[in-house]
Amino acid sequence: MIIEHNGGRGFEVSVNTVYVGRKPILNYVLACMTLFKSGANEVLIKARGRAISRAVDVVEVMRNRFMPDIKVEDIKIGTEEMVSEDTNTPTNISTIEIKITK
Amino acid sequence: MIIEHNGGRGFEVSVNTVYVGRKPILNYVLACMTLFKSGANEVLIKARGRAISRAVDVVEVMRNRFMPDIKVEDIKIGTEEMVSEDTNTPTNISTIEIKITK
Repeated sequence: MIIEHNGGRGFEVSVNTVYVGRKPILNYVLACMTLFKSGANEVLIKARGRAISRAVDVVEVMRNRFMPDIKVEDIKIGTEEMVSEDTNTPTNISTIEIKITK
Repeated sequence: MIIEHNGGRGFEVSVNTVYVGRKPILNYVLACMTLFKSGANEVLIKARGRAISRAVDVVEVMRNRFMPDIKVEDIKIGTEEMVSEDTNTPTNISTIEIKITK
């Protein structure tokens, strides 16, 4: 699990990002909650490919069980090109970004 | 096996809705394109659980390969409660609704 802190560089708004992968959902829920508890007002949840469903689960579990006050501010979907190391061929993979605020 | 639908908007009958399940992505892409070609200006793509990733794929493949003009108008995520026939226990499942327009 990668928690990326975009530390305060001048006037740039700090965005806290949680990348969702293959770990249990609650790991990511905890990561998001930790960011909120440590003062973040906004958390960005990102995922690619099959982890997209899990990213939605993270938001829904957090909203339904732990932090009913959070709001889904914005959801973006997109495509990224990845290059496989084995075959060296580019593959398109879908992405999602869910911005939640408290 | 999940059979009973309990609340939520999942089974709402709508002419321009495509439910994404376990079939190949191109099946759903074709379904959406058929709706657009037959006069719809708006298509709603819905999915639950693991099919959520596939629903995003459907939109991205359609946008990148077949209909570059479509726009993602709105994305909503939510939770539905489903009752398993075997255990009779309610389970929460995440949902997504992606509204696309041309």
